[in-house]
Amino acid sequence: MSRLTVNLPGREYDILSESGVLDRAGALLRPLLKGDLAVIVTDSNVEPLYAARLAGSLHKSGFRAAILEIPAGEESKTPAVLAELWEQMMDLGLTRSDSVLALGGGVVGDLAGFAAATILRGVRLVQLPTTLLAQVDSSVGGKVAVDLEAGKNLAGAFYQPSMVLMDPDCLGTLPRRELRGGMAEVIKYGCIRDAALFRDLEDLGGLEDIPARGAEIALRCCAIKAEIVERDERDTGERMLLNFGHTLGHVYERAYEYKTYTHGEAVAAGMAAAARIGVRMGITPPEAETRIVSILKQYELPTRIEAGAGDYARTLTLDKKSAGDAISFIVLEDMGRAKAVKLEKRRLLELIREAGL
Amino acid sequence: MSRLTVNLPGREYDILSESGVLDRAGALLRPLLKGDLAVIVTDSNVEPLYAARLAGSLHKSGFRAAILEIPAGEESKTPAVLAELWEQMMDLGLTRSDSVLALGGGVVGDLAGFAAATILRGVRLVQLPTTLLAQVDSSVGGKVAVDLEAGKNLAGAFYQPSMVLMDPDCLGTLPRRELRGGMAEVIKYGCIRDAALFRDLEDLGGLEDIPARGAEIALRCCAIKAEIVERDERDTGERMLLNFGHTLGHVYERAYEYKTYTHGEAVAAGMAAAARIGVRMGITPPEAETRIVSILKQYELPTRIEAGAGDYARTLTLDKKSAGDAISFIVLEDMGRAKAVKLEKRRLLELIREAGL
Repeated sequence: MSRLTVNLPGREYDILSESGVLDRAGALLRPLLKGDLAVIVTDSNVEPLYAARLAGSLHKSGFRAAILEIPAGEESKTPAVLAELWEQMMDLGLTRSDSVLALGGGVVGDLAGFAAATILRGVRLVQLPTTLLAQVDSSVGGKVAVDLEAGKNLAGAFYQPSMVLMDPDCLGTLPRRELRGGMAEVIKYGCIRDAALFRDLEDLGGLEDIPARGAEIALRCCAIKAEIVERDERDTGERMLLNFGHTLGHVYERAYEYKTYTHGEAVAAGMAAAARIGVRMGITPPEAETRIVSILKQYELPTRIEAGAGDYARTLTLDKKSAGDAISFIVLEDMGRAKAVKLEKRRLLELIREAGL
Repeated sequence: MSRLTVNLPGREYDILSESGVLDRAGALLRPLLKGDLAVIVTDSNVEPLYAARLAGSLHKSGFRAAILEIPAGEESKTPAVLAELWEQMMDLGLTRSDSVLALGGGVVGDLAGFAAATILRGVRLVQLPTTLLAQVDSSVGGKVAVDLEAGKNLAGAFYQPSMVLMDPDCLGTLPRRELRGGMAEVIKYGCIRDAALFRDLEDLGGLEDIPARGAEIALRCCAIKAEIVERDERDTGERMLLNFGHTLGHVYERAYEYKTYTHGEAVAAGMAAAARIGVRMGITPPEAETRIVSILKQYELPTRIEAGAGDYARTLTLDKKSAGDAISFIVLEDMGRAKAVKLEKRRLLELIREAGL
């Protein structure tokens, strides 16, 4: 069993990665959770694969386990579905001592996490991420949210889980496209903080080699993210580095109405674009851009997505990382070293044009 | 100008009470709020009275002020209206540096406060309570929420304002019934923590004398609440004392579907009932019960509301202050001194029967 401890002011929680951990969840969680009711929130893809195993393990340890299922897909991450979860949790008789368990990918983690953060003004939350993307990213850092008409993740909270349990075996059942999406975030961690991880990924054959190395890779990324989040829980400074590739990634997601490209694919193209802009600004070495483009191809990820000037302008105006008219754009100073550059939105749009994006 | 400073770990904010403060809000808030946009959330009763004055003052200090109006009444405190506010705030171009100003009574404070706590994962919040109830109670302590089908305030957050501005002149425009409702909470503060305040209230003639003394009374209650909240921000221990009269008050509100009695009226009857139960348990001196019943009459508040055994059982089962089967019930040991008693729900229902409630 691999274990990572995240230290936040006043709170501390463990991330455990172990084959078969779903069957041991009850025993692992019993000392941590006070109440009897454990509400499992999951989606229609994950429910048939893992919900019964998790519920069975909880039963064996004396929990009353209930399962709330949402339709799979980003379309469920809405205020309306959040309100439904709130009502259903109350119908189950949830009290402040009880817990919410998020079993699934990023959508489930974000939505169930936000419900846990707000129902009865906050109950205990356990994250059980089943996709590579959720394991390396959305299960650490405490960002939970729903989407609004105006954009993704616009209403939410910062809410830390009591524990994160990841079963690397889940990666074996992942659709290839999901696995690719997760790899975009893994590559991001190499880019911004860990040149050795980046080289290790270059040395692997490709997607086929990932499931067997999933536990190690996921915890390595979690460790980087945890280190950054520990120093900057409220997302004001260093944590911005995690947005490498995301500012333009959001443009690409929105430009195709979140339909054509997954989050990971959009972020992949966003990293390639950010590298190109970084080179243009004289901050990123051209060799880093070359390596990024080449590793994205290795893991079957797009290196470029077409978008119009209007798409760029519209999404950047909404960007949460903006304060008034300036935007914090993340560029690489070298492989494994990122920094935030404050740019006028106008200037960033110019750079995008100049870079031929 | 009267000022009270609330100290919470990592945060500190001022409560200012001053005649005409709405006209000076812009100047008072300018040093505190970074962004240019100030979103005023108010309701259809308060908007025509005060919104233009507040917006004008903000304009003069260089803010871009926008007004979002919700229909007056508890019926607006829903997940659906919350989601509408989220969307409208984004449509206004809100960024993380901007602020939400809650101008109105408890419903506006709770709803706008929850929206501020969650939009973009939290922007600055200023409370401008215009009712006595909101001034003495819901503007301090950081509890924000919406109602669910299953009950009031069931989804929400703990979120502290950056500042609270109260204009005692607002009390002059309050309907008599609103003023009475506020007095129920004022009397509560006397009961649980301040025997001198209770005696001062006994010495006044009645409701007519309140508006002129509003600034002093409101700040005195805020000081008590602030002192309790400072020691117990997350509502686990001492803060429970603030629920004196509320556990049974919620029963009465629900029994009549929140229509027949206001929150304050229900709490008034709840305090009389809690005093009676306290006497029955041998904890509350009979003289304290007599004084409570008599002061409630003095301020035209009900001393008893009829409810059936089923009403009591249903609401107590939902009570947020319950952990599993036990409930924390607040009783007076003496005038000005309250304590929480852990009771089995069954036992509390028995006591209610025995007390002839």
